[in-house]
Amino acid sequence: MNDHVVGREGSTPRVLERAGSEMHQFIQDLFPICRSITGNGNRETLRRIGQRIPLEVHEVPSGTPVLDWTVPKEWNVRDAYIKDGSGRRVVDFQASNLHLVSYSVPFSGTMPLAELRHHLFTLPEQPDWTPYRTSYYEESWGFCLADRELGILEDGTYEVCVDTSLHDGHLTLGEYLLEGQIEDEVLISCHICHPSLANDNLSGIAVATWLADSLARRADRRFSYRFLFIPGTIGSITWLALNEEKTKRIKHGLTVACVGDIGSFTYKKSRRGDAEIDRAAIQVLHHSGFDHKVVDFSPYGYDERQYCSPGFNLPVGCISRTPHGKYREYHTSADNLDLVTPKALGESLSVSLSIIDLLEGNATYANTNPKGEPQLGRRGLYPSVGGKDLEVEQFALLWVLNLSDTHHSLLDIAEISGLDFPLVRQAADRLLQHGLLEACPTEEKLSADGRIQADIDQGRP
Amino acid sequence: MNDHVVGREGSTPRVLERAGSEMHQFIQDLFPICRSITGNGNRETLRRIGQRIPLEVHEVPSGTPVLDWTVPKEWNVRDAYIKDGSGRRVVDFQASNLHLVSYSVPFSGTMPLAELRHHLFTLPEQPDWTPYRTSYYEESWGFCLADRELGILEDGTYEVCVDTSLHDGHLTLGEYLLEGQIEDEVLISCHICHPSLANDNLSGIAVATWLADSLARRADRRFSYRFLFIPGTIGSITWLALNEEKTKRIKHGLTVACVGDIGSFTYKKSRRGDAEIDRAAIQVLHHSGFDHKVVDFSPYGYDERQYCSPGFNLPVGCISRTPHGKYREYHTSADNLDLVTPKALGESLSVSLSIIDLLEGNATYANTNPKGEPQLGRRGLYPSVGGKDLEVEQFALLWVLNLSDTHHSLLDIAEISGLDFPLVRQAADRLLQHGLLEACPTEEKLSADGRIQADIDQGRP
Amino acid sequence: MNDHVVGREGSTPRVLERAGSEMHQFIQDLFPICRSITGNGNRETLRRIGQRIPLEVHEVPSGTPVLDWTVPKEWNVRDAYIKDGSGRRVVDFQASNLHLVSYSVPFSGTMPLAELRHHLFTLPEQPDWTPYRTSYYEESWGFCLADRELGILEDGTYEVCVDTSLHDGHLTLGEYLLEGQIEDEVLISCHICHPSLANDNLSGIAVATWLADSLARRADRRFSYRFLFIPGTIGSITWLALNEEKTKRIKHGLTVACVGDIGSFTYKKSRRGDAEIDRAAIQVLHHSGFDHKVVDFSPYGYDERQYCSPGFNLPVGCISRTPHGKYREYHTSADNLDLVTPKALGESLSVSLSIIDLLEGNATYANTNPKGEPQLGRRGLYPSVGGKDLEVEQFALLWVLNLSDTHHSLLDIAEISGLDFPLVRQAADRLLQHGLLEACPTEEKLSADGRIQADIDQGRP
Repeated sequence: MNDHVVGREGSTPRVLERAGSEMHQFIQDLFPICRSITGNGNRETLRRIGQRIPLEVHEVPSGTPVLDWTVPKEWNVRDAYIKDGSGRRVVDFQASNLHLVSYSVPFSGTMPLAELRHHLFTLPEQPDWTPYRTSYYEESWGFCLADRELGILEDGTYEVCVDTSLHDGHLTLGEYLLEGQIEDEVLISCHICHPSLANDNLSGIAVATWLADSLARRADRRFSYRFLFIPGTIGSITWLALNEEKTKRIKHGLTVACVGDIGSFTYKKSRRGDAEIDRAAIQVLHHSGFDHKVVDFSPYGYDERQYCSPGFNLPVGCISRTPHGKYREYHTSADNLDLVTPKALGESLSVSLSIIDLLEGNATYANTNPKGEPQLGRRGLYPSVGGKDLEVEQFALLWVLNLSDTHHSLLDIAEISGLDFPLVRQAADRLLQHGLLEACPTEEKLSADGRIQADIDQGRP
Repeated sequence: MNDHVVGREGSTPRVLERAGSEMHQFIQDLFPICRSITGNGNRETLRRIGQRIPLEVHEVPSGTPVLDWTVPKEWNVRDAYIKDGSGRRVVDFQASNLHLVSYSVPFSGTMPLAELRHHLFTLPEQPDWTPYRTSYYEESWGFCLADRELGILEDGTYEVCVDTSLHDGHLTLGEYLLEGQIEDEVLISCHICHPSLANDNLSGIAVATWLADSLARRADRRFSYRFLFIPGTIGSITWLALNEEKTKRIKHGLTVACVGDIGSFTYKKSRRGDAEIDRAAIQVLHHSGFDHKVVDFSPYGYDERQYCSPGFNLPVGCISRTPHGKYREYHTSADNLDLVTPKALGESLSVSLSIIDLLEGNATYANTNPKGEPQLGRRGLYPSVGGKDLEVEQFALLWVLNLSDTHHSLLDIAEISGLDFPLVRQAADRLLQHGLLEACPTEEKLSADGRIQADIDQGRP
Repeated sequence: MNDHVVGREGSTPRVLERAGSEMHQFIQDLFPICRSITGNGNRETLRRIGQRIPLEVHEVPSGTPVLDWTVPKEWNVRDAYIKDGSGRRVVDFQASNLHLVSYSVPFSGTMPLAELRHHLFTLPEQPDWTPYRTSYYEESWGFCLADRELGILEDGTYEVCVDTSLHDGHLTLGEYLLEGQIEDEVLISCHICHPSLANDNLSGIAVATWLADSLARRADRRFSYRFLFIPGTIGSITWLALNEEKTKRIKHGLTVACVGDIGSFTYKKSRRGDAEIDRAAIQVLHHSGFDHKVVDFSPYGYDERQYCSPGFNLPVGCISRTPHGKYREYHTSADNLDLVTPKALGESLSVSLSIIDLLEGNATYANTNPKGEPQLGRRGLYPSVGGKDLEVEQFALLWVLNLSDTHHSLLDIAEISGLDFPLVRQAADRLLQHGLLEACPTEEKLSADGRIQADIDQGRP
């Protein structure tokens, strides 16, 4: 991919800027492709992702039962247009794939405008924008266009051509498993089912691809990472149906969507609400300096809906900038290459990597000198001239020592102390070097909620 | 009673207005009767309630030991007045029963004003209002009058007549048990011990009577409903003493008091603080559009004091508009027929019915397709053309599916989703029709606090 | 000591004022003494405390291993100065013991100003103040002076004399155990290791001494009280190392520091965060009428750092006015006799005593008539004429009755009711007198968090 590494310890602005530009270029390349929930556009998208990371592509036959659903027929488009009496294409799939309602069935014929109108979708409140519409599960056809374009169509007879195919074929899924030291997995999932929409699908594809590439360059990954590039809803349902056993390995997860606009960050919590991924994302955003908000889980949005369905209840949150449906350009032709910026993409990559760094670095230790403070001064960890205030690095040492009682993870300590996680992790490393901390054998038994109060129950004889 | 039904699904303004007017008329009829904690005035009040609902009247003999108390002597009044030297009644029970201190013992004699003053009560800060005073448990006599009336009394000798009787008789309780499909009961309790006070006692009597009538007209009550029309404190203590076994059936309860004034609603929580009745009342008020406040339990107020004493600790809250002691007219002659309005009474009835509707409709279900979302589209539960935002009814379906994991009741789901309970109930009904939900056999084991977080502990292997 | 008693039931302003003046005088007497973590200055300080309370003095030899530390050499100063070319003492320990860096090793010699500067400490941002510096664990010497004084020193050669001794000797601890009816202890700890600093160390010493004297005059102490007068950090570490078994008796504790300035009160919670001492301090400050804030535990400050290290995790908070490091004069010559006031000292003593009164008075009872309210009227506990509002004393009776279900302590009841603890305690006493409460045998099993909600789980069959 590139010769730089977007690294663990926070990347320099220049590196992020370059990654942002490359991601924007990648989005530009993918933009014209006609994606949907199935079809050759999805294959082409996955092929190009596969040029950057070693993607495995799965083809699942139409008709395969998947949970409560069935893999649909495969849909492809050769051409689609509406011609006026003079033979001019007044609505043309070649100009923009948004003009054709996704999953339109083949049709060819002529009809007066009055009848044609039943098949036309516009956005009267945004007269210059073409809406994005789908009809996956009802066999029909339709076109989308700008309301202003509809307004100038004259009465008369129009020729309609929907040269599509809808036949038994396959649903195409992209998957990349990057193995780490342990089998426990972090799931990164993005949807690839939208045609020429830049923020809604392509931004997530780009950030997930660059994330995968960055993590692949690390030798010392603790977790395994599973990247899914899949059509929304039916894609995750299909993957879950075919891989139910593997879901037990997923300890943390993120769906990545709408991460290219300049809006502030939004983290949507997993259904559990206090999973480690939720706390990690909140901690990172809180210290990131970026405007952000955290919203509770709701059963609407992207594939976290499926991962967080009650039968799976996986700890999967969603990272976005302006979330779906909350920006004006959502599901319109205005969600284009201007809406996403290299800077925003770079920041989204950086925040996502910081969340992963936190998950990688989180651990629970036992203070080896739990009675009283150990004498830091003779170990060179404390200033020798007293009387002045301490530096933040020294506070971090004191916090980690005080709370490393086998009941508080480093993330707990960051939350309680208010210190940025990397400072806490660094303090733990220094204390480990001096033998003042040791690994905690019972780490996996800890409660998710490691408030100080917890050890009233557990830490006292 | 009336030919309309104040129905389950929210009543039309006109129906509520009519019910409000009828309740106000009923209050007007009951207003002149001299009620106290015992006596013929209470019997007459219960007789008139009994003309509207099939009330059972219990007579408990004076001297009966009831918990830490003893049923007092019965008190009745034939006449009471103070005459001046000219023989004019300057304070007259016939003009208003508030003039006589309740439970005044018989007395007859003459005395100078200076001595009489020790038996007179006024409200100097409200010189035109007569206060309401009682002396149930100390044998004495007294009169209440407006401070301005006291001010114009001239020195001289006055004739006092307190023609009352205080003898072994009975305490009179009114009770109506409306049986439902299950033995579990909802308790509705109001006090009937105040003489001519409209908001404080009569408003509660009216709303409880109309509630009983409305519920009696329903064929499909799940709960049984127990209505108590009783004197405050000694009435509930007597009922509890004689019916201790029955208290185990009470799963929810409300005292109803001061519900006729135009002040905003007040819900006072049960001692438990998070009983289902508390959450139901808060949920209903929150979505009612009415101004309201929720206050914590305190061991002062109406009969919830007794129901929530530590040995019973029943889940009984109190619904009021302006609560006792918080409106200027409280326990004065200004708590009269002008203070209560048909509109306020209608609203109070409506809110109370909505709380009961919620209790009736609350249940816990299991999603029969818990893995992934079920395909709502092919069941006609989801729009077939994608791309637009969902309607609130569809959000309700998604919420109910996502949280129906046997750990969340519909009330939990309403609280977490922010949706109004009837929408959630309706969504559950649609899902039940399509076999997407099933009854949850362990419903009674659920914790009162059904936060999403709960299933981290319970819902994971 | 004095013939007045700063008593249990809140002291009169005059008594507090007199105690404040006496404490200020005591601080004045102790001010000139050169204290450090060891040495004769500490012995003299303890001797003078011992004139007021029967202090036990422990001498712990240098070199004794104490937890992760070693008792340091003993340090004493005969003289220390810097003379200019004319023989004038330009920096003189005799003028203020702050001029010598604490634990400066012996040195004698001459050197040019440029070289001398490496041993001089000033506060450029406060040019008239001398800073306070220590070098306990690195052998070096140095002087502190006002930046303005340094500015006028002329180039040239200076004579330096540090006539100190640093040799195997002892660390000196002061301890006073005041026995009570039970072995459970309240720990009161203050540091004695600062030279001429009035608020930082002397104010705590004075308040702790007066507290001890006040408690010693009480015949009916429930708890035992252990007072420690010790050098910061090494003192508590030494005491903990030598008395580990005794720490199990410590049920509540306070470090007392910086309690003489006129700033608002600060209570720093114990590491547990909801220990009874934390709740007691918050309750007292809340009702005290004094401005105050409550801060969470942090592993920095005074000896609570050691008491709250994870291996001990004792319930020890810290009571201060403006906390260490938060006032400009902290660790400078401006922390002098003007910074501390008799009024502030008196208030600090009063608040500390109120916290102890609460701990002494807290208990959990069972209502002997838990079903319904007992009839308070016939016991003279309730007004006989009804209709008016109750007094706060009667509310307190109702609250104590309602919540005395063996699951709520009086502190719980004060917190839930919003009533001041002494009112709640008084109500309990009246109810005990009338047999309406009885001691609760399972008191020690109660949870620290006695919210009403607690008895949903525990108090129901």
